[in-house]
Amino acid sequence: KQVVLLPGDGIGKEVMESAKLVLNTVATEYGHRFAFHEHAIGGDAIDRYGNPLPDDTLKACHQAEAVLLGSVGGKKWDNLPANKRPEKGLLGIRKQLGLFANLRPIKSFPALEHVSPLKQEVISGSDILIIRELTGGLYFGQPSELRENGQAAVDTLYYQRYEIERIVDKAFQSARKRRKHLTSVDKANVLESSRLWREVVEEKRQQYPDVTVDHLLVDAAAMKLVTSPDQFDVMVTENLFGDILSDEASVLTGSLGMLPSASVRSDGVGLYEPVHGSAPDIAGRGMANPIGMILSAAMMLRHSFNMEEEAAEIESAVNDTLNEGYHTADLNREGGKLVGTAEMTEAVIENIT
Amino acid sequence: KQVVLLPGDGIGKEVMESAKLVLNTVATEYGHRFAFHEHAIGGDAIDRYGNPLPDDTLKACHQAEAVLLGSVGGKKWDNLPANKRPEKGLLGIRKQLGLFANLRPIKSFPALEHVSPLKQEVISGSDILIIRELTGGLYFGQPSELRENGQAAVDTLYYQRYEIERIVDKAFQSARKRRKHLTSVDKANVLESSRLWREVVEEKRQQYPDVTVDHLLVDAAAMKLVTSPDQFDVMVTENLFGDILSDEASVLTGSLGMLPSASVRSDGVGLYEPVHGSAPDIAGRGMANPIGMILSAAMMLRHSFNMEEEAAEIESAVNDTLNEGYHTADLNREGGKLVGTAEMTEAVIENIT
Ligand SMILES: CC(C)[C@H](C(=O)O)[C@@H](O)C(=O)O
Ligand SMILES: CC(C)[C@H](C(=O)O)[C@@H](O)C(=O)O
Repeated sequence: KQVVLLPGDGIGKEVMESAKLVLNTVATEYGHRFAFHEHAIGGDAIDRYGNPLPDDTLKACHQAEAVLLGSVGGKKWDNLPANKRPEKGLLGIRKQLGLFANLRPIKSFPALEHVSPLKQEVISGSDILIIRELTGGLYFGQPSELRENGQAAVDTLYYQRYEIERIVDKAFQSARKRRKHLTSVDKANVLESSRLWREVVEEKRQQYPDVTVDHLLVDAAAMKLVTSPDQFDVMVTENLFGDILSDEASVLTGSLGMLPSASVRSDGVGLYEPVHGSAPDIAGRGMANPIGMILSAAMMLRHSFNMEEEAAEIESAVNDTLNEGYHTADLNREGGKLVGTAEMTEAVIENIT
Repeated sequence: KQVVLLPGDGIGKEVMESAKLVLNTVATEYGHRFAFHEHAIGGDAIDRYGNPLPDDTLKACHQAEAVLLGSVGGKKWDNLPANKRPEKGLLGIRKQLGLFANLRPIKSFPALEHVSPLKQEVISGSDILIIRELTGGLYFGQPSELRENGQAAVDTLYYQRYEIERIVDKAFQSARKRRKHLTSVDKANVLESSRLWREVVEEKRQQYPDVTVDHLLVDAAAMKLVTSPDQFDVMVTENLFGDILSDEASVLTGSLGMLPSASVRSDGVGLYEPVHGSAPDIAGRGMANPIGMILSAAMMLRHSFNMEEEAAEIESAVNDTLNEGYHTADLNREGGKLVGTAEMTEAVIENIT
């Protein structure tokens, strides 16, 4: 299996090492072979090649079956012009590989419920999958430019019906494998694109009569995520709403460093990355939480390589490790075992073998 | 003082009665005279005149010094075409009166901290003012239409520099009257309009050297509201981001029914309404929480009529009433005094006189 590794910036490099070790363990245990090809992206690529997404990296990604990404960005590159920023590399890769579906699972780990900012009775039992459209909407719509000599600016929220159809299909299929409840989020009382979105969901639901569907306005969704996160199963929404809501949801459990994500297209090719950022403040100190990256590697095994058993093995090893009390510095656990990136990775590996 | 009352739909009618009673009490105590002019809006106006914002209503609002609004909307009108829906009335009035600044104070009441979905140590001491731009952006940008025979849809995020300047000025001025900390929220790593927004904030800050400013991306803001709401003072952002973030923020304290809002322009004319919706499920049963509406009336006294003392009097009466244990059914308080709309209003009035 050909896997491109893009460690990127900050703690990205450190947690990528953890993912490699875990994947090598799985390879040995299950008799697979992963070929890793490492390339530059983001600020690191700007520093080395003057481009956040070098051609060489893009070419390697095009040839890969899956891409693992650490994290990109950092203060150092914040003042570069828009098209030279680290984020541009990320947006470029999503668009160019056609990774239209961003999957963001948010699950409260029983061992970690106490670290949530929410009361235990509010967060307990929450298990949400947010599916965000990733290659359309305001992120890519044209025109996006200054107007009238810099006295005005415009961005464009544009969706084609087929773009909505494919992400809505993905969402229905995901709901089928879970608790069969889909919540579609839009702003249909204001936006034309949201009304088209809602229309497509209404059409598609005929094909999935076993799935319960409801529509929620984005402002109401932002409220309900906080007041009753346990009421959601699968949530599907457009790019920018998904950006906001999935980040909001990611702090509900209090353990952002644990969360993985996948950006996939229909043929199984995908890019997998932890939800956390590059955390420049703790980079290079060996204290980053590698679990988000390790669980992203598990998502890769499941979605790109159809290795359900191997993915589940990693996930249960992570669970066991948490239950043993191991935690990194981002998680405050009285009486737990505080460890660094390497020891945490080692503990997970022990639970795999 | 000429005040237009727009009770609107659902519980809007009931809570408007409370506001009238409280304002009449203030009038007697302080020797003012408020002339109330009641008009139709939203679903109620659709039913009676076939138009969510009848000309007559709009004309009255244009002549008023302030408008008090109950709430609009309800399932009954959800399937009407976009331009006939109750919300259209609300958007029309904001735009036509030029009410560009939406003020949303969110404050945790000590007597009610336990009803928050957040842990007490997270929410305690939070006191945020979200200032949302209300007459620009995706809500009003053109084109907003179906394309390619209904196979695509487009909406437009458009801002002129002066629209950003006036809301940013309002935000700096508000910050000055509070804890002098302004957080500007945008998505400058993706949107051209956000880059213009950030540029304007950077220019304006020269005029307000006493105010500390930081910029936050909207996704990060959605996270931080949940993890550390007490870190914010004044937050300013564009229309849609403000819609989402202010609603997210409004559930943090757990007492949505208590929250007021103001939509104002530079000359003091404003529209005041509670944050809660029309709550059709409890409408007509005399159990709605009138505090959001009553505190909106207080905001009207302060912002439109410069009656600071009278406004503060209402606010402290509300505080006293809560401290006495009074609460409506939306707030779960063990050992408190559960009352309906009328009794709650009566209790507040007692504390004014
Ligand atoms: C870096 C940024 C452009 C990106 C986005 O908004 O999509 C990030 O916030 C994310 O969610 O992956
Ligand atoms: C009813 C709707 C159009 C409105 C908005 O989105 O502005 C509402 O959500 C609000 O925030 O007042």
